[in-house]
Amino acid sequence: MTDQMNCITLAARPQGAPKDSDFKLEMRDIPTPGDGEVLVRVHYMSLDPYMRGRMDDAKSYAEPVPIGGIMEGGGVGEVIASNHPQFSTGDMVFGMFGWTTHGVQHGTMLRKLPDGMPITTALGVLGMPGFTGWYGLTEIGKPKEGETLVVAAATGPVGSMVGQIAKSRGLRTVAIAGGAEKCKLATATFGFDAAIDHRAFDDARSLRKAIAEAAPDGIDIYFENVGGKVFEAVLPLMNRFGRIPVCGMISGYNTGALGGTAGEGPDKFPVFWRTLLVKHLLAQGFIISNHWDRFAEFVGEVAPLVASGKIAYLEDIAEGLDNAPGAFMGLLEGRNVGKQIVKLI
Amino acid sequence: MTDQMNCITLAARPQGAPKDSDFKLEMRDIPTPGDGEVLVRVHYMSLDPYMRGRMDDAKSYAEPVPIGGIMEGGGVGEVIASNHPQFSTGDMVFGMFGWTTHGVQHGTMLRKLPDGMPITTALGVLGMPGFTGWYGLTEIGKPKEGETLVVAAATGPVGSMVGQIAKSRGLRTVAIAGGAEKCKLATATFGFDAAIDHRAFDDARSLRKAIAEAAPDGIDIYFENVGGKVFEAVLPLMNRFGRIPVCGMISGYNTGALGGTAGEGPDKFPVFWRTLLVKHLLAQGFIISNHWDRFAEFVGEVAPLVASGKIAYLEDIAEGLDNAPGAFMGLLEGRNVGKQIVKLI
Repeated sequence: MTDQMNCITLAARPQGAPKDSDFKLEMRDIPTPGDGEVLVRVHYMSLDPYMRGRMDDAKSYAEPVPIGGIMEGGGVGEVIASNHPQFSTGDMVFGMFGWTTHGVQHGTMLRKLPDGMPITTALGVLGMPGFTGWYGLTEIGKPKEGETLVVAAATGPVGSMVGQIAKSRGLRTVAIAGGAEKCKLATATFGFDAAIDHRAFDDARSLRKAIAEAAPDGIDIYFENVGGKVFEAVLPLMNRFGRIPVCGMISGYNTGALGGTAGEGPDKFPVFWRTLLVKHLLAQGFIISNHWDRFAEFVGEVAPLVASGKIAYLEDIAEGLDNAPGAFMGLLEGRNVGKQIVKLI
Repeated sequence: MTDQMNCITLAARPQGAPKDSDFKLEMRDIPTPGDGEVLVRVHYMSLDPYMRGRMDDAKSYAEPVPIGGIMEGGGVGEVIASNHPQFSTGDMVFGMFGWTTHGVQHGTMLRKLPDGMPITTALGVLGMPGFTGWYGLTEIGKPKEGETLVVAAATGPVGSMVGQIAKSRGLRTVAIAGGAEKCKLATATFGFDAAIDHRAFDDARSLRKAIAEAAPDGIDIYFENVGGKVFEAVLPLMNRFGRIPVCGMISGYNTGALGGTAGEGPDKFPVFWRTLLVKHLLAQGFIISNHWDRFAEFVGEVAPLVASGKIAYLEDIAEGLDNAPGAFMGLLEGRNVGKQIVKLI
């Protein structure tokens, strides 16, 4: 009998927010690695908002997960069999194994983890989310000393990277977060100059007033990772020549009509277009998977800062694959605190 | 008795499209130039879509014209008195004199016209509109050989510059214009590879189909200068990593609710935001008056191309200041063919 692994498959396409019955815990045969392939025992897997988009059958920047297919995602683990010359049993690697205890990938699709850092960092602060924040802020946001930055989901792995890199470059940083606890973390742990609890405001107008008080010189960079009410609140506060990196938006992931990747934004498109024009704003979307050529540069710059404690990070670790769906639903509702990870071993 | 000049003032703020009674032809004393100032007899004045925005009392990138104030605008004319050392009687200059036969400006606000070119070119192909097209295309659009460009109002002074510069850099160029005559001009005079009459299509969807046929490889640059139906048609056809310079939009100038500077665009903001994200689009607004530091470079590059006939231009010249309001209303409706100018002398 072939050895078995556990995995979670997509049982049904969610209508709105995913529910338990959209996922299925299954046992399957552990695949045998072919030529050039590597078999990995996954120790930790990542949960990220983009996965909600993969559950819909809508045209997006990536293929949807098929019904019955293993949920997509990244993980870190140990090589337990290798047919690739660059990997040996015992190596710790990152790969897109999916929501599964074991996975096979071609060696060219794997990344060896650096020594000396906790392996979970490869899923958050030194992985895709941290890289997303670093790339979007530096390449599109182009931060300049003395400017003001606003970022939402500010205690998450993207937002906290954005805030800390901006702060280190001499910007005033304003966090938007959900709840008093996260606001406290934003200032105490991640060094934001101010933090605003968006849940304390019913509408964009009152939220805007609070943001305006926290950003008395206006906003030069709005790092857009949530959409919705926050963006509507922020737009009129943007300074001339402001920049808006747009990296995917959690607030719209559950709205099926949009294919799961857009927030609500301002009431009307023309309001946005006019603001873009009269204030010379730049808005640019980016999907981080097109920029892996910059990843080594990111790690080279940021890993020492993480190692020395100059860049802080938080992880929220769920236990066991069977808890992954619940943790994922919590993530979409903002119930996690820090990078959401699932421990598998 | 002081000598008199004719001018056109703003009599009332328009509700929607301007009408005759919103303007008033007046005689006023010719102002006396003070220290450092220069008095100019205006020969030709420019009419441009942005002037519609100045007629509204809405917050924009420039102050509105006050009721009873002279309508704003640029013109070219002859110096008839100078208290500035760099200008002498007889010099031909460009300045923001307004809708008037005579104007006084400080010498620092005037630009001497180059020899050897018709002076009207300083209002169009070698003036603000041509510069707008050149700057937006090259600085924001960043055209690359083999790409496809779409521009609306393609026979106007901005659109025709955009199309010709793009063509000279090896792009496929697609014109959107209003009416068969302008479409013919777009291809025959301005060298567009294809031209589409937007009036032949009732809705964005059918217009989109026509644009898709003219741009079989998709659109890499959409130079946005009209907004409305055209942008809605274009958006889904944008290629990944496409660029959208946004330079002011004629289709929205008459909609008072928007302050006169925005088109309609896609049905919903989230559709735009999602497209921006998943296709890595860049959208950037610009107001050309912030970029005069690049004007000399523009003239240096483009004036020889105009002189040699490699860049064509069209002018639509109305006769007499009293015809300026009618010509301006025609401009907003697209009735002009080429750069709209008023001859004053």
